Amino acid sequence: MKITIVGTGMIGGAVARAARLLPGVTAIVGVDSNAAHAASARALGLVDTCIDEVPADADLVVIATPNEAIPDWVIRLQNHAGVVMDVGSVKRHVLDTVRASLGRLPPRFVPCHPLAGSEKHGPEHAPADLFRDRLVILTPDKETSPEAVDLAARFWRDLGALLHVMDSASHDDRLAVTSHLPHLLAFAFMASIGDDDLRFSGGGFRDFSRIAASSPELWWAIFKLNQAPLTAALDRFDAEIASLRRALLSGRDDEGLRVLSEAATRRRKIP
Amino acid sequence: MKITIVGTGMIGGAVARAARLLPGVTAIVGVDSNAAHAASARALGLVDTCIDEVPADADLVVIATPNEAIPDWVIRLQNHAGVVMDVGSVKRHVLDTVRASLGRLPPRFVPCHPLAGSEKHGPEHAPADLFRDRLVILTPDKETSPEAVDLAARFWRDLGALLHVMDSASHDDRLAVTSHLPHLLAFAFMASIGDDDLRFSGGGFRDFSRIAASSPELWWAIFKLNQAPLTAALDRFDAEIASLRRALLSGRDDEGLRVLSEAATRRRKIP
Repeated sequence: MKITIVGTGMIGGAVARAARLLPGVTAIVGVDSNAAHAASARALGLVDTCIDEVPADADLVVIATPNEAIPDWVIRLQNHAGVVMDVGSVKRHVLDTVRASLGRLPPRFVPCHPLAGSEKHGPEHAPADLFRDRLVILTPDKETSPEAVDLAARFWRDLGALLHVMDSASHDDRLAVTSHLPHLLAFAFMASIGDDDLRFSGGGFRDFSRIAASSPELWWAIFKLNQAPLTAALDRFDAEIASLRRALLSGRDDEGLRVLSEAATRRRKIP
Repeated sequence: MKITIVGTGMIGGAVARAARLLPGVTAIVGVDSNAAHAASARALGLVDTCIDEVPADADLVVIATPNEAIPDWVIRLQNHAGVVMDVGSVKRHVLDTVRASLGRLPPRFVPCHPLAGSEKHGPEHAPADLFRDRLVILTPDKETSPEAVDLAARFWRDLGALLHVMDSASHDDRLAVTSHLPHLLAFAFMASIGDDDLRFSGGGFRDFSRIAASSPELWWAIFKLNQAPLTAALDRFDAEIASLRRALLSGRDDEGLRVLSEAATRRRKIP
């Protein structure tokens, strides 16, 4: 199998690094307009070579660019003979933008989202085992070829991932809650404090705020692309904050404890 | 040195476990009205015995009860010959409550706060090395005896901690920002989502929300005892959320990126 990785940053680099170890993979080619990433990915041996265009004979093309650049690549590769998949955090806008432009979805395009990442970026931070035991969500549409979905699913399973198939709208609603909102809150929290506060940070602070070290550009784009589900999730969060604030100011211990207990009970369900 | 630990939960248990290894410590006694904690602390060998009252010959008494019970213990031990210290997360209310009751602070009482903890509770979860390389804040007052502060400081240093001395009001303002607010936000976040969302949680979600598994009772008490600094910190957080929401809805990318970049730059200052 010949693989092309478009976008050799942290996620693309991790796909390449893990794919290297698969027995059937004979070539990994990188495509990246970021010369530093391309040079680094080549120097690290993540890709065999970096070129400007996706080779016609690639069996699998992985689009690992920033989210807003994905639709253009899918459109550009609409007639490519291989299976094309992306790894973007927001799915509906990809499908909508491609369909608005082409009037259809290319059947060999499989929208994917591995729930794996890091606050670091660049191929030099690509972990060797980023997808092991992590969930990868596939959001194929009616037009997507079942054979293409099978190949994509097999590839992710070979990298050690667990699979879940759902529609792109449900994906975006869920991820607004479990990924985009925590990032927004962590950024807002870190923006609201002072540098002087940092020396009084314990383990709780550090874990809570780790994701605020993520790339501002990547995340601002994600917030924009998933704006409606994100602001809906933020509304629900704001309602809980308002009720905690009310309980605190009015001495309603029963209400405060009820909210905290519901939260703790839910969090303790995660092993 | 004979040590008495009042409150043999996770923190009290960790103090006992670490103190065991100090050469000068000849006896560790537990005092706990929670029969399960007392039995467990004894069974684990954290304390030699559990009794109902603090022995008169204790050289060091560590009050590791929930925060709201600390003032009563300080008042009860006002004439104790040993050094008395607490480990509470909120300091001003302890000093204010004791002073309101006694008209003074006992000179041998040293208010302490180790910035170390866990979302777990009970002596069975007391880590062996909880205070190693962690900051312990001491908030002595003018009335506090320098010898008592020295003994407390030496004890924490022997447990591997780093020390910082500040006044109780500054402590409460800082900790509202770096500890109490993140806990409030994590609880509100976990209360705002559904059980169905949990399966879509990645590493970011897990780290961000870990502290929401903490004890609702302990944390609601802390929020109440530090209400004014906490709501002031929450106001500043809300202002950042409002400006991100505005930027998102009005397409002000420069403003959104400014907030996210400020946050990421600050968070990256933590090694």
